[in-house]
Amino acid sequence: MKDVLIVTDPEKIKLLADRTRLEIINLLRERPMAASGLSILLKKDVSTIYRHINLLEKAGFVRAVGKEGNEKLYRRTARIFLIAPAGEGNLITLTMDAIHHREAETLYNLFKRAGFEIEDRTLFINVIKTFLSSLETLSRDLVKRLEGMNIDPIEFIHLMNLLVLINSPKLQEEAKKLRELLKLED
Amino acid sequence: MKDVLIVTDPEKIKLLADRTRLEIINLLRERPMAASGLSILLKKDVSTIYRHINLLEKAGFVRAVGKEGNEKLYRRTARIFLIAPAGEGNLITLTMDAIHHREAETLYNLFKRAGFEIEDRTLFINVIKTFLSSLETLSRDLVKRLEGMNIDPIEFIHLMNLLVLINSPKLQEEAKKLRELLKLED
Repeated sequence: MKDVLIVTDPEKIKLLADRTRLEIINLLRERPMAASGLSILLKKDVSTIYRHINLLEKAGFVRAVGKEGNEKLYRRTARIFLIAPAGEGNLITLTMDAIHHREAETLYNLFKRAGFEIEDRTLFINVIKTFLSSLETLSRDLVKRLEGMNIDPIEFIHLMNLLVLINSPKLQEEAKKLRELLKLED
Repeated sequence: MKDVLIVTDPEKIKLLADRTRLEIINLLRERPMAASGLSILLKKDVSTIYRHINLLEKAGFVRAVGKEGNEKLYRRTARIFLIAPAGEGNLITLTMDAIHHREAETLYNLFKRAGFEIEDRTLFINVIKTFLSSLETLSRDLVKRLEGMNIDPIEFIHLMNLLVLINSPKLQEEAKKLRELLKLED
């Protein structure tokens, strides 16, 4: 499994607008699974799961990595997908909104687990979504230049950090709101 | 192997001041290796390698994961170590400087591979080092609260991005220099 895969093709990204497909690629990060296993976890029939897997496989998000009995086992092709659409459109906007919403919720839960009291959950999630969405737009050209490169996770983290830093002059409003929400001093 | 391990104990972090030990933990991310294999790659005798491995194992950076013939195979305990010392001292400063220098060089190479012409390599590396070092100091308290939590790599990346964003008002000088060095427009 690759560490990081940058995905910019709008046609591929649109596939992730579907909740079941998004759940499939999330589940296949932990361990390889067969369609029957996914079918039980996601409470969908096996033929539906196969249809989604075939689409995801064609787009390069998952691939068969072995067999369990008669069934193929599937795994994600990369530990981290960096989704950065090289194009616009209603479905792309909706897909990115769904992805950012999920990421914002994850971050909210992480900060809660770390002991932060965030009174306004909705506002926190909206600020993070605005941040992620602005960052994606601002760093689109840079990310495009990195496509196809083999990036290890440490490099990737530093790179993302640099993208935030480079674009931070345009993100000062979000920075201020976040400091307030997390009750951090200036 | 865990995805992310946060290391704050200064005594453990000091171990990474040694170049050979840093190389050992970098090599053990890709695949498990025995002391003899590391000995050949790093051109050090096996007893030296064992001494380093024992120190790294005690500190929780590597662990035995199996055997190859008579030899134990070792692997890193996490894909990503977040090194954030909860303490000061000369050796800690030197260790963090070495770690940041290595990371800055990696980023320089990454941007070069992506086609950026960076004329002043030394300046670029110094700006990145200042950024990483400021970020580490500014986010120390936050990182301390996350220690011991099980964080997946996506959460970790978003979290690091947020740390940069939250602290960005204090990092505007570095942001400006970086934009200039990468010839990005304001």
